[in-house]
Amino acid sequence: MNKTRFEAFSDGVLAIIITIMILEIKVPHGEEFSDLKPLIPKFLSYVLSFIYVGIYWNNHHYLVHGVSKVNGKILWANLHLLFWLSLIPVATGWMGEHNFAKASMTLYGIVLLFSSIAYFILQRIIIVNEGDGSVLAKAIGTDFKGKLSTFLYLVGIVCSFYNEWISGGCYFVVALLWLIPDKRIEKALSK
Amino acid sequence: MNKTRFEAFSDGVLAIIITIMILEIKVPHGEEFSDLKPLIPKFLSYVLSFIYVGIYWNNHHYLVHGVSKVNGKILWANLHLLFWLSLIPVATGWMGEHNFAKASMTLYGIVLLFSSIAYFILQRIIIVNEGDGSVLAKAIGTDFKGKLSTFLYLVGIVCSFYNEWISGGCYFVVALLWLIPDKRIEKALSK
Amino acid sequence: MNKTRFEAFSDGVLAIIITIMILEIKVPHGEEFSDLKPLIPKFLSYVLSFIYVGIYWNNHHYLVHGVSKVNGKILWANLHLLFWLSLIPVATGWMGEHNFAKASMTLYGIVLLFSSIAYFILQRIIIVNEGDGSVLAKAIGTDFKGKLSTFLYLVGIVCSFYNEWISGGCYFVVALLWLIPDKRIEKALSK
Amino acid sequence: MNKTRFEAFSDGVLAIIITIMILEIKVPHGEEFSDLKPLIPKFLSYVLSFIYVGIYWNNHHYLVHGVSKVNGKILWANLHLLFWLSLIPVATGWMGEHNFAKASMTLYGIVLLFSSIAYFILQRIIIVNEGDGSVLAKAIGTDFKGKLSTFLYLVGIVCSFYNEWISGGCYFVVALLWLIPDKRIEKALSK
Repeated sequence: MNKTRFEAFSDGVLAIIITIMILEIKVPHGEEFSDLKPLIPKFLSYVLSFIYVGIYWNNHHYLVHGVSKVNGKILWANLHLLFWLSLIPVATGWMGEHNFAKASMTLYGIVLLFSSIAYFILQRIIIVNEGDGSVLAKAIGTDFKGKLSTFLYLVGIVCSFYNEWISGGCYFVVALLWLIPDKRIEKALSK
Repeated sequence: MNKTRFEAFSDGVLAIIITIMILEIKVPHGEEFSDLKPLIPKFLSYVLSFIYVGIYWNNHHYLVHGVSKVNGKILWANLHLLFWLSLIPVATGWMGEHNFAKASMTLYGIVLLFSSIAYFILQRIIIVNEGDGSVLAKAIGTDFKGKLSTFLYLVGIVCSFYNEWISGGCYFVVALLWLIPDKRIEKALSK
Repeated sequence: MNKTRFEAFSDGVLAIIITIMILEIKVPHGEEFSDLKPLIPKFLSYVLSFIYVGIYWNNHHYLVHGVSKVNGKILWANLHLLFWLSLIPVATGWMGEHNFAKASMTLYGIVLLFSSIAYFILQRIIIVNEGDGSVLAKAIGTDFKGKLSTFLYLVGIVCSFYNEWISGGCYFVVALLWLIPDKRIEKALSK
Repeated sequence: MNKTRFEAFSDGVLAIIITIMILEIKVPHGEEFSDLKPLIPKFLSYVLSFIYVGIYWNNHHYLVHGVSKVNGKILWANLHLLFWLSLIPVATGWMGEHNFAKASMTLYGIVLLFSSIAYFILQRIIIVNEGDGSVLAKAIGTDFKGKLSTFLYLVGIVCSFYNEWISGGCYFVVALLWLIPDKRIEKALSK
């Protein structure tokens, strides 16, 4: 089974997701600097989502690197992950257009939550496939960071009903948590 | 002849098709949850088409994996398939915007029908190229699932003139049929 | 020098060009079949341009296959070609939106003309690089088909000032001429 | 660590950035040649940005070619570069829509400035990684051209407050400076 195409297709979809978000930042109608002002929340939400997709690409990279054999289950678990990630541009656009309004923060959190669940499923299927004693399984271990992220998304979603800034803070903290690529896998694989 | 580029180009086009469909889900103007309501049919049609393109990518993956030599005929049969698949975003968008209206279900069915015919042509050309005694030819066999799908698309198209839901049901059943990747080829090739 | 990346980038750009043209076919506002009628010229121009980009991809594929070493000149000649090809979606959209109006046929012809010149330049640079005695140089030979195409584009451009259909006929004939992949190179290289 | 995917993802993002800029050149509403007139500044700014992204792709190509090992730091420095480059289409669109208005020239310069800084950071991290005695480090040397470009962007930004044409001239000169691929690295690596 051809891992190269599996990676190439995932890279293609992720590259498109990360890039089409920029299409939400519409060219302003006026020609003054002040016309750029409504773009600020759009720009900030673009930065956050760019980092998120970057994180997913990085971790996906490490995870798939440790895969020795791709099968049908892995293909679909991967498409499932790409599906949720493909919703990030819409959620980002809504968040940016309405200045981080409460409902948009909830939706953003839901998309992140389901993406993290989809990633978890993909990771589980790959570990089962590789065997519990595999290098990858040991490298991922209890996946504390993954579980913490999912928990923080849930907190963010609940908070978004009361205060959009606490909610946004949660999503921001998760992004910071992951900005450092998954050293666990990196270390284990480089042994 | 360079199979890598053939695969890379197909992956690129398929990755773009699967991702630009999200551009049809326009960011809602309001900032309440209720403003997301008109997006529901768009979201559902996006899910269905995402699965369809995913299926085509999976099957294309297996089919081309079994190809030993690419030639001009295969290149054009492949472009012909990509052409019909590239119409899926338009048909999906129309379906989603008008809440699965009858005419949109007909169009969607027609695009799926021609995609399946194009896939069939590509498959035939590849089998002729590889020889009837090849592993691939045996793996595909009578292609019952392929013929059943084409039949169901036809039923869906005819039904769409009377009832859009029966029509949608047909397209949904075909998607389910194929969600499992083509085990026949997978098995035969892994021998 | 890394030919793989050169091909991957070209494939990426060509895949995007061929696919974003579909974004010009906007989802119709009404939900009846009759609402699809204004899409017919858009659809026809999409078909023509899809074939053209497909032809360029095919010929690019064969041409680059025969390249043994990529250098800075080839990189820029290739980007120059991609630049002109990237204008095809705009010209196609204009042609489709105004039902093959005269001016749009002129523009379309100009874009095709410059694309063919850019391809010719790329081909020349590659041949000079490979040497006049190389397999590729012999395979391309006098490039009668290429010169005929350039001539037909010129005829099409001139005709577009008087009659859009003769002009369209010229572009259509060139597409037919090239639909068959470049057997000359294919044959020579497979020796 | 998988350099292929690193390159493939970068190629994908760069290919999309260079191609979606064409989406800013909206199909004109009228069908006369005169309707193309407002597209002229858009076209010119497209040409400039196409050359810029082409330059970045070329230099990125050479730079990464000299990398023997990719790590987390390089991945993020690369994403940082892609982030700034992804803003080029927005800045280009604004510049083209308002006929190179002063504020748009400032923004364009800022995006170019930060892109060049991001490239510089990536280059530094790669050199540190490879070692100061590496072929790549010697090939890049004092990077006079890089420093000159950054200086010219700064000049362009300052000038844009007074005169948009001097500003545009600066950006144009930098593009010319780099149109020739980085011979220093090319030469050193081919030894």
